[in-house]
Amino acid sequence: MIIDKTKKSKLTAVHSFTVFPQDLNYANSLFGGKVMAEMDIAGVKVVRRALYGTGADGCVTASVDRIDFKKPAFLGDLITMVSEIKTLGKSSIQVKITVTRESIMGDIDYICAANFTFVAMKDKKSFKHGLTFDILEPKEDENESNN
Amino acid sequence: MIIDKTKKSKLTAVHSFTVFPQDLNYANSLFGGKVMAEMDIAGVKVVRRALYGTGADGCVTASVDRIDFKKPAFLGDLITMVSEIKTLGKSSIQVKITVTRESIMGDIDYICAANFTFVAMKDKKSFKHGLTFDILEPKEDENESNN
Amino acid sequence: MIIDKTKKSKLTAVHSFTVFPQDLNYANSLFGGKVMAEMDIAGVKVVRRALYGTGADGCVTASVDRIDFKKPAFLGDLITMVSEIKTLGKSSIQVKITVTRESIMGDIDYICAANFTFVAMKDKKSFKHGLTFDILEPKEDENESNN
Amino acid sequence: MIIDKTKKSKLTAVHSFTVFPQDLNYANSLFGGKVMAEMDIAGVKVVRRALYGTGADGCVTASVDRIDFKKPAFLGDLITMVSEIKTLGKSSIQVKITVTRESIMGDIDYICAANFTFVAMKDKKSFKHGLTFDILEPKEDENESNN
Amino acid sequence: MIIDKTKKSKLTAVHSFTVFPQDLNYANSLFGGKVMAEMDIAGVKVVRRALYGTGADGCVTASVDRIDFKKPAFLGDLITMVSEIKTLGKSSIQVKITVTRESIMGDIDYICAANFTFVAMKDKKSFKHGLTFDILEPKEDENESNN
Amino acid sequence: MIIDKTKKSKLTAVHSFTVFPQDLNYANSLFGGKVMAEMDIAGVKVVRRALYGTGADGCVTASVDRIDFKKPAFLGDLITMVSEIKTLGKSSIQVKITVTRESIMGDIDYICAANFTFVAMKDKKSFKHGLTFDILEPKEDENESNN
Repeated sequence: MIIDKTKKSKLTAVHSFTVFPQDLNYANSLFGGKVMAEMDIAGVKVVRRALYGTGADGCVTASVDRIDFKKPAFLGDLITMVSEIKTLGKSSIQVKITVTRESIMGDIDYICAANFTFVAMKDKKSFKHGLTFDILEPKEDENESNN
Repeated sequence: MIIDKTKKSKLTAVHSFTVFPQDLNYANSLFGGKVMAEMDIAGVKVVRRALYGTGADGCVTASVDRIDFKKPAFLGDLITMVSEIKTLGKSSIQVKITVTRESIMGDIDYICAANFTFVAMKDKKSFKHGLTFDILEPKEDENESNN
Repeated sequence: MIIDKTKKSKLTAVHSFTVFPQDLNYANSLFGGKVMAEMDIAGVKVVRRALYGTGADGCVTASVDRIDFKKPAFLGDLITMVSEIKTLGKSSIQVKITVTRESIMGDIDYICAANFTFVAMKDKKSFKHGLTFDILEPKEDENESNN
Repeated sequence: MIIDKTKKSKLTAVHSFTVFPQDLNYANSLFGGKVMAEMDIAGVKVVRRALYGTGADGCVTASVDRIDFKKPAFLGDLITMVSEIKTLGKSSIQVKITVTRESIMGDIDYICAANFTFVAMKDKKSFKHGLTFDILEPKEDENESNN
Repeated sequence: MIIDKTKKSKLTAVHSFTVFPQDLNYANSLFGGKVMAEMDIAGVKVVRRALYGTGADGCVTASVDRIDFKKPAFLGDLITMVSEIKTLGKSSIQVKITVTRESIMGDIDYICAANFTFVAMKDKKSFKHGLTFDILEPKEDENESNN
Repeated sequence: MIIDKTKKSKLTAVHSFTVFPQDLNYANSLFGGKVMAEMDIAGVKVVRRALYGTGADGCVTASVDRIDFKKPAFLGDLITMVSEIKTLGKSSIQVKITVTRESIMGDIDYICAANFTFVAMKDKKSFKHGLTFDILEPKEDENESNN
């Protein structure tokens, strides 16, 4: 199955959440662990869509590359995560997830980014998804929206 | 402040979540109450963005129009909510929120839609936001993406 | 099956919760979405009791009428929801849910009310519950308790 | 301040919740810890109401008497907790909390009961609430409702 | 099966959690109900380990002895619970759970302790676990670590 | 401040949780995101203890090295995380976190390990903690317990 380069929704997904009191650490900034948990959810969102119609039941997280937290986030911030499929292995799918914060005043800061690798699964075993791309990188102008 | 009709992100927002075991009712379908709670979050997302720079602290929910649940949703479904600003009052903002489900197989169904009215707040009082639109309805071709 | 008008517990139910930090919005008042989610739970409580013995497995939320939030609620408030069965259709049951807040000082305010329509379900299909009432409205003096 | 024996809502409160998947233990029955946590909430509900107007800020849990779990509860059960004020100390209030389950079919079983002792607090210190009763035990006919 | 007295991990377990905003009561101290719920989890942890290899599916909480809360705990405190198996019945296991708080400054206070009785279960019935000890009390020097 | 090598609790901490229904992904195995969130909590536990008495308010997560998930975990598993302080920078503390699962039958598997770097904070700025070790690696025999 070849993913049609014009169907942006097969290549990227947007996930977001708002920072609540229970997401804060000692310094009253957003817990790193909360960010990582939501990045995983953000990655699964684009992967599940890519896997529709392949016969896979879903996917599991296989690995996460290094994450550097560049800026903190605070109570009330709207955290947005953009997931993009970057590489396709036989049963794996590598996704880059970029995280930004949007303050209550509307200011936007980059927080972190990381590559997550997911493995397609069927009947609790890894599954060869058969996906290929014409073009791996979505074109610049397909990325501008800020949903 | 006039909202620029070309800035789609000021007029619409997308919110989503996945149906987990704790979101199910007796019939093993998604609880109506969970849908309504997430619709409120989806509406706040677009309203907070519209209010950036107006001096408002945020908004509160003032009313919700009738909601008819047309289809159920199930465990593992990805629920997507698109919020669009429809009408601007002096201190209120009316948002239409449309809810769809995306099954584990990728099938998409319409679940429901409703109009929510939010009131801009400053110092715990209602606040005249001063927002106006050139064009209230986003054009058709601005709505196609499925993030 | 005729619901005995003297069995108040078949006609009304009381549900309550306390406002916690995670239930607050920007203005430090109770999130509208939280109220709606709990109203759904409150409605299900009286409907499940009415359906005992009818053969139904439970019910799903079919629609919600307009809700106007008249007053905000705050951290520590005890929110009380009284659900009353108002109308019986073939497979549907309409419930009016009235919401009040009780402040930490004991002051009580009306927040909102709305009609929710639930549909009885059996084997994931709508189910004719066969319920009828002698008297739809509980008598005044059956409503005074504040549990 | 003398609590008027005719104001039942000052002497008893009803609290309830539905058993969800996350509340179950190994044996697919309701976790004892969940029951105890909700009993505490049920006790606070009647105590906060008794303390309205006394000058107390609220109360804290001082002790819990022995609890014997007589019956298990299961997924979908509606758990009802009735709290009754039994004894008044200088700054303490002793509450008996009785727990029953209501199955999806409507059957009702006794689960457990326990005495909780709460201490009234003001400015983070224990507070002499000054409450007295004419009659400690609510009369039988004040207890029949099952909200 | 005789539990080897040198295997400390069969006799004691450590459980901990950090106090979050949603765990606080009126007096901004840790809710008694939260403590009790976590004590139950702490008790199950040592009991499940003792039951490995006995054929039991797990255990349920049968009773809890009186609990006196000696000190409050506050936001950010690290609560530590040490569970020790004290007595073995035919199908029951009695556990003493001791709770301490560790403030953000590192100060440690005793909060409470209680005996919980669990019953081993198999196929949703009580199960004779066949466990015996050589020595019921772990020796002093086995308890010093503070994990 | 020199951390005394004989005080194991300053160098390692143990954190654990049980896998609940809401922690599962499509393949009915434990969500990678949940593991990462809990690893962060596990790391903070040992770091907060090391920082007691240094003047720091707490710490924030600065970076996470690559994580490879070697084995899945399942419903009912007890997940144990051992955090060990490995390296001390001027204001940073690097922690290695090792994750294992313990099945309902008592079998233990290695899931993953990763290095997390935390930065000590005071007044929302990074803080030079002044900590040094005599010996960075805890001796073998200090690690055997499985709390």
